[in-house]
Amino acid sequence: MSSKRITNWQSEAAQKRQSLHDLIPSEWILRGDLPPANVQKDVADGFVHQYLSDTEVKYTEAEASTILRLIRLGRWTARDVVGAFCHRAALAHQMTNCLHEIFFEAALDDAQRLDDHLARTGTPVGPLHGLPVSLKDQLHVKGVETTMGYVGWIGTFEGKRGTGKEKVRESELVRELRELGAVLYCKTSVPHTLISGETINNIIGYVPNPKNRLLSAGGSSGGEGALLALRGSPLGFGTDIGGSIRIPAAFNGLYGLKPSSGRIPYEGMANSMDGQNSILSVIGPMATSVETLKLCVEAVLGAQPWLHDPLVVELPWRESIFQQAFNCVNPMAFGLLLNDGQASVHPPVSRALNRVADTLTRLGHKVIDWKPPSHKRGVDIAHDVWAFDGGHDLHAAFSLSGEPISDQIAQNYGNEPRAEKTASQIAAANVAKRAYQKEYMDYWNSTSQVTGTGEPVVAVITPVAPFAAARPGRYNYYGYTTVTNVLDYSAVVIPVTTCDRVLDSFETEYVPFSALDEEVWKSYDPEVYHGTPVGVQLVGRRLEEEKVLGLATMISREI
Amino acid sequence: MSSKRITNWQSEAAQKRQSLHDLIPSEWILRGDLPPANVQKDVADGFVHQYLSDTEVKYTEAEASTILRLIRLGRWTARDVVGAFCHRAALAHQMTNCLHEIFFEAALDDAQRLDDHLARTGTPVGPLHGLPVSLKDQLHVKGVETTMGYVGWIGTFEGKRGTGKEKVRESELVRELRELGAVLYCKTSVPHTLISGETINNIIGYVPNPKNRLLSAGGSSGGEGALLALRGSPLGFGTDIGGSIRIPAAFNGLYGLKPSSGRIPYEGMANSMDGQNSILSVIGPMATSVETLKLCVEAVLGAQPWLHDPLVVELPWRESIFQQAFNCVNPMAFGLLLNDGQASVHPPVSRALNRVADTLTRLGHKVIDWKPPSHKRGVDIAHDVWAFDGGHDLHAAFSLSGEPISDQIAQNYGNEPRAEKTASQIAAANVAKRAYQKEYMDYWNSTSQVTGTGEPVVAVITPVAPFAAARPGRYNYYGYTTVTNVLDYSAVVIPVTTCDRVLDSFETEYVPFSALDEEVWKSYDPEVYHGTPVGVQLVGRRLEEEKVLGLATMISREI
Repeated sequence: MSSKRITNWQSEAAQKRQSLHDLIPSEWILRGDLPPANVQKDVADGFVHQYLSDTEVKYTEAEASTILRLIRLGRWTARDVVGAFCHRAALAHQMTNCLHEIFFEAALDDAQRLDDHLARTGTPVGPLHGLPVSLKDQLHVKGVETTMGYVGWIGTFEGKRGTGKEKVRESELVRELRELGAVLYCKTSVPHTLISGETINNIIGYVPNPKNRLLSAGGSSGGEGALLALRGSPLGFGTDIGGSIRIPAAFNGLYGLKPSSGRIPYEGMANSMDGQNSILSVIGPMATSVETLKLCVEAVLGAQPWLHDPLVVELPWRESIFQQAFNCVNPMAFGLLLNDGQASVHPPVSRALNRVADTLTRLGHKVIDWKPPSHKRGVDIAHDVWAFDGGHDLHAAFSLSGEPISDQIAQNYGNEPRAEKTASQIAAANVAKRAYQKEYMDYWNSTSQVTGTGEPVVAVITPVAPFAAARPGRYNYYGYTTVTNVLDYSAVVIPVTTCDRVLDSFETEYVPFSALDEEVWKSYDPEVYHGTPVGVQLVGRRLEEEKVLGLATMISREI
Repeated sequence: MSSKRITNWQSEAAQKRQSLHDLIPSEWILRGDLPPANVQKDVADGFVHQYLSDTEVKYTEAEASTILRLIRLGRWTARDVVGAFCHRAALAHQMTNCLHEIFFEAALDDAQRLDDHLARTGTPVGPLHGLPVSLKDQLHVKGVETTMGYVGWIGTFEGKRGTGKEKVRESELVRELRELGAVLYCKTSVPHTLISGETINNIIGYVPNPKNRLLSAGGSSGGEGALLALRGSPLGFGTDIGGSIRIPAAFNGLYGLKPSSGRIPYEGMANSMDGQNSILSVIGPMATSVETLKLCVEAVLGAQPWLHDPLVVELPWRESIFQQAFNCVNPMAFGLLLNDGQASVHPPVSRALNRVADTLTRLGHKVIDWKPPSHKRGVDIAHDVWAFDGGHDLHAAFSLSGEPISDQIAQNYGNEPRAEKTASQIAAANVAKRAYQKEYMDYWNSTSQVTGTGEPVVAVITPVAPFAAARPGRYNYYGYTTVTNVLDYSAVVIPVTTCDRVLDSFETEYVPFSALDEEVWKSYDPEVYHGTPVGVQLVGRRLEEEKVLGLATMISREI
């Protein structure tokens, strides 16, 4: 029985992997192997150009706003644009395993329909008319599966067979994106369970960082991160319950928005531990420009998601808040967190944080040291919440196929389910979480006493991770992102610089303050890291998406 | 041991009851017994006037807006107004057991300080300057206890001794009310556990309906209901997790707003089963006029509670939504739910619902039959959620003193704790709840096909309970209010009429469709009910407080 299942999962995974490959037109198949990672760390930008025509490069390296404008003007067709992104996504997948589902043909048909509509009526169907949008493999799309990296989910609807929903049901956001005119063409890879900062599963394997293949593309929206970094998509959606949008955004040199819960519709999506409602996973956009994030959020909110997702709050896009943050004439104050006391950051991360702080100071803003309530407490709350069900949900998903659990997951959830928490224990965790949120909020308010602006800080600049990107199998500290989820704060990742073997030398004299800190410190190697993007996190309060996007836009133009 | 505890709880309760009585100035103590309830059903209005001076009647029967205006103009003093309400509240308590805490002296001092401030500066301290506000006994106020009806909480902070928070800590809303200029003077009684539509506990006994002492004042904000009906307060706060604002509002002929969660700050309040976050208890205002509800919500939101309560959403008061609902020139459509299929309503409730519908039709609006997803399903979800901890929290509170559990609570929670739900079971309940919310939302959207206005209904008119008010010990169906909590919708109760022995005859020929329905039907008696207020519920979508208040204002002026 056991061996039969093991045979099954391997062949099922191989078959799924192959079926994906078979959906790539043969002329787009890469011939021969890529050079080794240590020889060709970066396969993005220049390297991938060799496989593309100039026109394809033009389409795929245009910003979303340009694509939308030129399609609307009739100078580009949606079909041509979509075709170029399909090609580049196919290349990206062959280089990084970044896709779980490919539906290029349906996308080209959809694009053609949009072109016909525009030609016929002179009007775009919506604000995203013709824009290709990639989706993390938690969103259900008609015609394709959602495996979420589980072999046992192949051929099912979220692990169940014969539900009638297989390949038919669409998630609410998918419905809205289509209504807005977006063209959907692929779904991107995730670590099975979604609970890892690296992307690995038994179907597509491991997703390396296209900007530095010696490192991870991050996770859990790692497929999105790799695809966007290779410009196989102009706009993608990731999800985030502990950093899963921000980590791949930072690792791959992208912008990413982690909204607060209740802003962007999550309705009808696959998830891990669905119904755990103490810390909610959220969905948000990732892109190569912050302007694209804004454009995306504005469009999605224009579809009034609060009428279709019971958890979304009726908060239309508030342009005045965005403008106030973006164009603020008065000095604003920012918090700066260089170290949370749990793990010091690598030199490139430190340099990136200081660079943002220096830019703000140069612009006349104030930067104060951020000394919040213990981040360890926040991290402990998150770990407690994620362990509520003792891993029952994810172990049940693994047992569907008998597939092995990756080390990245097993280190937190073991190889067997553990005891579940009771209602009273869960209630106590919720009370502890609320108390932490309240204390953090009170600290935030109290900064009005020290900012000199008369107001509390508008946002806080923090690391995303202790490193620019994780070394495979060595992602050992998530606290910098996790605390934001416990607080349900809004946050934007801003790419700032790249690691530099000269500027960012290894601090040989550093004295670690804990075993964890030592591990993190020792994982830095200037040679390995050289050239890797470094991003920072700009954290706002709850439901301040407009404000953090406004500030991020301001910063991105000045940095 | 057991008998010792029983002796203890009785004497502790008696002592607490007496200490409350002792805080009433001797000249306000009623001499002799009230007439029997069947002789003098209604002790409000005319009856209570015999104990008050004309000036006191003038102050206590003025609307909040008038009080605020005249104090601001210097024509009335806060001290005089507060004094009059203290007197009337003391009378109300002696008639209905509606108070748990009395702090008239502190209130008079506060009022004096406000008068002095106004005289000195010419400016009120805030929009509620000088307005007395009563609070349900879940709010912590400096100088007094919070027992929530538990004998075991006497002399403690939420059942714990020596926390340093006893009689010191204040709830967030209390802080805001003081900042806004309100004067706090009493806390109102609740059923122990808060989970009942009647107000009964071992400290103050039972709270009868002051408009009809043969019936219940409702619960769990029953003390508020009785106090406001007797005009011992111009504005009070209740809480609602299954109907606890709306039930006493309807039973006592009041307006009451049950907001969605995340609108009015609940931070720092005592609660039952704190940390259960599947269906959240909410706090909202109750008053004798709908204008007072608006004034209150506007003032509280002006204090920016989202900066002080992590669960409050940054949604300032949206006057345009209120005005659009209040002054709508185009026909709007309303849903009308006369019967949810679980329990038919008594004739007076039916008449009230139809009267509202007829009024709307007369005004040119549309009224359609409301045929939503099964309300039984909604009720089952609520019962499931409330039983998550098997009653551990409340049984622990009872066991602090060994006091007996009222029948109203024991019928749902037994006399011993039951098994707790596990994390997986709770997650499944959350998923079921979300699915129900989504289905209900989709139904609501779908009404645009049948309203004739091109838009879905703006709100739904429903019963609050099957009866105008419950007969003591006979509150057997909560579904009409509960479903709104599961959906997290906003709702306002509107008093419509009073029961009439002639108009509302007993339907002898009625054929009940279930045992429950029969019980409800048989509990109607035209003689007993004659004169009792009848309210209806106007239900809006989530976080549509401005809209339901605007509609309720419009309706209240036309009915």
